[in-house]
Amino acid sequence: MSNSFKFKVKVYYEDTDAGGVVYYANYLKFLERARSEAIYELGYSNIDLKKKFGVLIIVKSCNIDYKSPALFEDTLKIISSIDKISKTSFTMKQNIKRDEEIIAVSNVHLVSVNLDGKPIKIPGELNNVLKKFIN
Amino acid sequence: MSNSFKFKVKVYYEDTDAGGVVYYANYLKFLERARSEAIYELGYSNIDLKKKFGVLIIVKSCNIDYKSPALFEDTLKIISSIDKISKTSFTMKQNIKRDEEIIAVSNVHLVSVNLDGKPIKIPGELNNVLKKFIN
Amino acid sequence: MSNSFKFKVKVYYEDTDAGGVVYYANYLKFLERARSEAIYELGYSNIDLKKKFGVLIIVKSCNIDYKSPALFEDTLKIISSIDKISKTSFTMKQNIKRDEEIIAVSNVHLVSVNLDGKPIKIPGELNNVLKKFIN
Amino acid sequence: MSNSFKFKVKVYYEDTDAGGVVYYANYLKFLERARSEAIYELGYSNIDLKKKFGVLIIVKSCNIDYKSPALFEDTLKIISSIDKISKTSFTMKQNIKRDEEIIAVSNVHLVSVNLDGKPIKIPGELNNVLKKFIN
Repeated sequence: MSNSFKFKVKVYYEDTDAGGVVYYANYLKFLERARSEAIYELGYSNIDLKKKFGVLIIVKSCNIDYKSPALFEDTLKIISSIDKISKTSFTMKQNIKRDEEIIAVSNVHLVSVNLDGKPIKIPGELNNVLKKFIN
Repeated sequence: MSNSFKFKVKVYYEDTDAGGVVYYANYLKFLERARSEAIYELGYSNIDLKKKFGVLIIVKSCNIDYKSPALFEDTLKIISSIDKISKTSFTMKQNIKRDEEIIAVSNVHLVSVNLDGKPIKIPGELNNVLKKFIN
Repeated sequence: MSNSFKFKVKVYYEDTDAGGVVYYANYLKFLERARSEAIYELGYSNIDLKKKFGVLIIVKSCNIDYKSPALFEDTLKIISSIDKISKTSFTMKQNIKRDEEIIAVSNVHLVSVNLDGKPIKIPGELNNVLKKFIN
Repeated sequence: MSNSFKFKVKVYYEDTDAGGVVYYANYLKFLERARSEAIYELGYSNIDLKKKFGVLIIVKSCNIDYKSPALFEDTLKIISSIDKISKTSFTMKQNIKRDEEIIAVSNVHLVSVNLDGKPIKIPGELNNVLKKFIN
């Protein structure tokens, strides 16, 4: 799994709920943090993409399976890789682990849109670097 | 769609992000509010279920398709119905609309677990009333 | 306390933390919901104020004392009133109660700013109706 | 300001609102993350304190002044120090900066409570190390 991007997240009070575990919606925040950090790793930022290419990367769909609950003060690892890239969109597989235990498995479909929200071609140079994370 | 539960949500600042739309993880909060309100409508509460039956209803998986962005100060309607019920789990279809426009479509797989997190039979009387929302 | 605005909030899983109580930052969400609803009650919306007057109402400071923890599935009441109005700002007192028990007491200083974030005069007609909530 | 604890926070989509800035309640999340990290820095964790001493550190009051808005993708620095320690509580000053610009200034009053929520003496060895952050 060398073609993946790894990012660590610490679980704070804000992430948990009265069940004593991470609230189910908050895992999607962790996934988005990891995607933003992957963009930084590739030499871009969301603001850059907007300014330079007029492009926003938005979530079209998200599928998440919760395998085991994460707990307060856990350190989690998000492992993100790209499944496939098409002209205007790409699919990511993002797994959340605590050490070697799988906490959640997700698939996220992301689309490149212009400032009016219409799908547009992923900028060539972004497309090139995204391939770094194809698994 | 008479066998569904309808719940209204108002979009406040807290729900939106710098893209000017509802943040993608926050729709899952709306879905959970609607599920909690459906439980109240059926004459229970999450606390009741825990005290009376030793049961928690947890999310096993969630699949959400984002069709159109919801905006600040929108009023959204969550329409929830049950697809099927098995011995220890059930699947809900939860759609989010703004007037007649579909904002998001989701499928949520919920499991009845005991206080140790092990799947257990949905309590008989809860199973009976859940059928009210089978579509 | 007739010159106050009352708004009810239900505590969902999203609002709580692993301590089993409402997370301390989330009370500020409740306060903001109540302020937005007060604006609607007065016949405006945040979008209206921006479009019609080029005005945003922003929080300049917030002071909150936590008296007693709110719990999962509690129904809370937010009682909001205005302490004083100056040319460009006003101060609100917002109390959070569960039945007659005080959960939190807050003071929020709000400023009328233009789209560049500079303080500007509160629009005359808004100023007039805000007085409805002076206590 | 050598007797302070510094912690960096990156602003993600989840932290912002439709106004294009960090949502006012979310700064309190940043403050809490910094306080938790300070506890780790001192060799403890919230879970440790609970297990070892039966102690929870809870927020009794919070006062925050918003000086300048933080923006999407900003990197913020939280500088935390202790103003004074009494037998059962202590007061922290937590400033949020972007480079040298002050974003927000806060005072947080924290209380040591037992598992029933009653104030109790700050454990001696914790009291000793907390002094490291007295300014």
